[in-house]
Amino acid sequence: MSDIEIAQANEANEMLPITAVAKTVGLQADDLELYGQAKAKLSYPTLQRLADQPLGKLVLVTSINPTPAGEGKSTVTIGLGDALNLRRQKAVIALREPSLGPVMGMKGGATGGGYSQVVPMEDINLHFTGDMHALTTAVDTLAALIDNHLHQGNALNLDPRRILWHRVLDINDRALRHTVIGLGGPTSGVPRENQFDITVASELMAVLCLAENMHDLKARIGRIVIGFTYDRQPVTVSQLGVTGAIAVLLKDALKPNLVQTLAHTPTLIHGGPFANIAHGCNSVLATKTALQLGDIALTEAGFGADLGAEKFMDIKAPVLGKTPDAVVIVATVRALKYNGGQALKDLTTENRDALAQGFANLAKHVANMQQYGRPVLVAINRFTSDTDAEIADLVAACAQLGVQAIPADVWGQGGQGALALADALITALATTSRFVPLYDPKAPVKAKITTIVQKIYGGKDVVYDHQAELALKTIAANGWEDLPICMAKTQYSLSDDPKALGAPTGFTMHVRDVIPKLGAGFLVVMTGSVLTMPGLPKTPAAMNMDVSDDGVISGLF
Amino acid sequence: MSDIEIAQANEANEMLPITAVAKTVGLQADDLELYGQAKAKLSYPTLQRLADQPLGKLVLVTSINPTPAGEGKSTVTIGLGDALNLRRQKAVIALREPSLGPVMGMKGGATGGGYSQVVPMEDINLHFTGDMHALTTAVDTLAALIDNHLHQGNALNLDPRRILWHRVLDINDRALRHTVIGLGGPTSGVPRENQFDITVASELMAVLCLAENMHDLKARIGRIVIGFTYDRQPVTVSQLGVTGAIAVLLKDALKPNLVQTLAHTPTLIHGGPFANIAHGCNSVLATKTALQLGDIALTEAGFGADLGAEKFMDIKAPVLGKTPDAVVIVATVRALKYNGGQALKDLTTENRDALAQGFANLAKHVANMQQYGRPVLVAINRFTSDTDAEIADLVAACAQLGVQAIPADVWGQGGQGALALADALITALATTSRFVPLYDPKAPVKAKITTIVQKIYGGKDVVYDHQAELALKTIAANGWEDLPICMAKTQYSLSDDPKALGAPTGFTMHVRDVIPKLGAGFLVVMTGSVLTMPGLPKTPAAMNMDVSDDGVISGLF
Repeated sequence: MSDIEIAQANEANEMLPITAVAKTVGLQADDLELYGQAKAKLSYPTLQRLADQPLGKLVLVTSINPTPAGEGKSTVTIGLGDALNLRRQKAVIALREPSLGPVMGMKGGATGGGYSQVVPMEDINLHFTGDMHALTTAVDTLAALIDNHLHQGNALNLDPRRILWHRVLDINDRALRHTVIGLGGPTSGVPRENQFDITVASELMAVLCLAENMHDLKARIGRIVIGFTYDRQPVTVSQLGVTGAIAVLLKDALKPNLVQTLAHTPTLIHGGPFANIAHGCNSVLATKTALQLGDIALTEAGFGADLGAEKFMDIKAPVLGKTPDAVVIVATVRALKYNGGQALKDLTTENRDALAQGFANLAKHVANMQQYGRPVLVAINRFTSDTDAEIADLVAACAQLGVQAIPADVWGQGGQGALALADALITALATTSRFVPLYDPKAPVKAKITTIVQKIYGGKDVVYDHQAELALKTIAANGWEDLPICMAKTQYSLSDDPKALGAPTGFTMHVRDVIPKLGAGFLVVMTGSVLTMPGLPKTPAAMNMDVSDDGVISGLF
Repeated sequence: MSDIEIAQANEANEMLPITAVAKTVGLQADDLELYGQAKAKLSYPTLQRLADQPLGKLVLVTSINPTPAGEGKSTVTIGLGDALNLRRQKAVIALREPSLGPVMGMKGGATGGGYSQVVPMEDINLHFTGDMHALTTAVDTLAALIDNHLHQGNALNLDPRRILWHRVLDINDRALRHTVIGLGGPTSGVPRENQFDITVASELMAVLCLAENMHDLKARIGRIVIGFTYDRQPVTVSQLGVTGAIAVLLKDALKPNLVQTLAHTPTLIHGGPFANIAHGCNSVLATKTALQLGDIALTEAGFGADLGAEKFMDIKAPVLGKTPDAVVIVATVRALKYNGGQALKDLTTENRDALAQGFANLAKHVANMQQYGRPVLVAINRFTSDTDAEIADLVAACAQLGVQAIPADVWGQGGQGALALADALITALATTSRFVPLYDPKAPVKAKITTIVQKIYGGKDVVYDHQAELALKTIAANGWEDLPICMAKTQYSLSDDPKALGAPTGFTMHVRDVIPKLGAGFLVVMTGSVLTMPGLPKTPAAMNMDVSDDGVISGLF
């Protein structure tokens, strides 16, 4: 059965009203704002009331570098949450929201798979509770207000060539990467170059995900730098006078969404910034709520541990006021063999040499996570084509590094397939450990970048393009140096070369630009070419989708 | 008190759970898909079950040509609905959904005003149940799929210069009226000119509003002509192979939304196509549902009776399978004086001459509506500055035409202010009448246009630009001539000159183009310049908006 068929069979027969799921973690019906029977947002009074609750243990699920073979980080997170509940731990999951662009583009959902899914999967993968649409609207309303300001006399002296704020759509639309707008004469705006990104790449998504409450959201929105004047002075949303209007558009989007896994584990799905141009983690509010509602909160971060987990530790954790108590790194035999040079089409054939070769990628991520001082486990997301010998090799290789690797069949068995992993995690959480930050945010910007490149990526040094040096001068002149670093780098390699698989060393990172994101509160360091608007493939997933006369969706994975 | 203050006081103290409102018209809790406590969509099984219900009486509320003085068509519709329920009629209201663009731009909501409002007004005016966002996403996903088709080899031989499908945003953004997309080299699409419209101007909005059910929605989507090949052959969504995906995105948006007035009258708010480029009426599904649930269904149509009501009669009614049993034309003393030449700033001063002069506009709309054979009433939406003498003059002038004019104070008194109007309407609905169609859709295209221009607008004849003649040839060659006409004309005048107020006669209409909308099932006749993407004013309404730390919105009207 396909993912959607498994989900639909469950939704029809077994899915609980979300009020019943909420009750298992102490929430009453009036804590919820229902979106149908199976989805809800948590109200502002509820979030305020929960602020007094003690926090549970925090588990961060991350992975090796992504490959076309697939790793299944969300699927493992969901299956592990279900397994913890089978072991009578009160586990709550916190995930990112899917973006519609990839849903229409590539086959593959963001709601787990097989018997480790969150439901209702169609709704979550489509419009859900409207958060992405609210963000798109807020971003584009701000853009329209900026262009209207230019059109109506430009009192702020904004330089149309130095506007940083991009429009967005939650769609993979490469034709909008480079556009010219404002054509058509004096009644139709000021002509200028303009770029559309996918919604999740916008700073406003990062802002929503880092905001602690509405007050903080408004402060962050007000600080966003939309561009520079002809005199090179930064101009903020606050100066434009529309902070309130943008916050109004995000009033509901700021509230975390509650759904359930196939096994009824409460799951908060909220926010989903890109893990390259932004920090790649679900919202601080959702993670904090999971910590308040559960004894164990499980969350994940985008792409591999070099991007998502590093940013979780160095950008999100300080805002959250809580660091992970344990880290789980997801790996698959297939992906490691791909890292070891086996061709994609051959990955179902046993190849212990390729596995041994590709293991370097996992080993590097394990060492990276261990630097933060917390217990680290490896979850082997088992595929049917993995041989017993390959699994044994991988477990043994991890043991040699002093890290426990536990196979889990979450796709085929749900929580039942992750009981051993859950047991190992429970043991790890019982140990005492101390978090060690990677860098001091007050260190010089270049020093912070070098630390990440050397200690996480395994690189030798960093060179800066002319544009990057200019940007660093602007950052220094404006006193923005104390912000944490948000690296924008290919997800496919530890280096800035997407083809350098495994664990490359001795390389030089090239920094093209450094973009201040004052609302999010970090400096984006652009390396290589980072795509902020994906394209559709030759045969988009959209071609297979349909809906019956009575509203049943098919072809969505 | 402002509209939002009146609404918020009510929402906190008096608003009923939407399940209780639904019960008054025989709907049970499981007929509803809740969006919070006060909003719901009607489920597909419910819509199917209602198909057997007998239909109530249908009342169409329309108005004179809009002026800057304001007419208050929605406010009168809401107050009249409340008044009918005070008179123990079972009235259900069906309105259009507001567009966010104007909400952020101009002060003035689309949810009525004063004590004749629908609530929760903030939600309805902002994201509501996500219908507009689903439409925006569907329109832009189709656009991305079209540009991806060009990029991936263009198997359909689409001419990039002859693509009819525009992108949209639900935002007033004049800088997107004329753009060039696909720049940046071969990896970023095919360069071409591109236009963004506001969402409500898209054919897909008209399609949603005219679809009878999901089956019909898919058929209409499949028929949409997205452009022409280099050989000038039309290319449809069906040929592109993505009908199902676009319908998937509209699965929930197709379901009508149920809310309530301040007096708890059940109100369906669903769909809102432009009344120039499209037909300007709420959805067929919502109006039909109102007819199934109520003894009297009250609905309205966009702009003046020359645009919205004519299209209701000639485009929507044939699909609905039901014509209005009575027509109410809303007029204000202020707006008629403006039509009679009094300056906007002086409208609060009594001016019986200007009123007598401007009455011609109302008289023409009365005569127009009487052509359709149904009883016609005039509702005088009373403002505090109207003098008794002006009101008496207006009532007398209407009486001379044989039409009853009834003053109503719906803003200040809600339904209590419209009891006399309700009584007159109940009497009118008890009379026997026969609907007379304006034209036969099988008549030649030019004959149909001439009929509308002469019989509704009061014009003499029609001239066609070269582009329009070419378009008519294409329409003839493809056999699209039997479709009804959807005039795109300025709303400010009965003619195509927005400055010609009152009731101009003897003018010649200029047709620039004729655009086939096969999905909606009409031919759009472009006259004058019709703006499909509005701009923001010098001081947008957004500047006044704010939201408190606990989520209370202010400055929204």
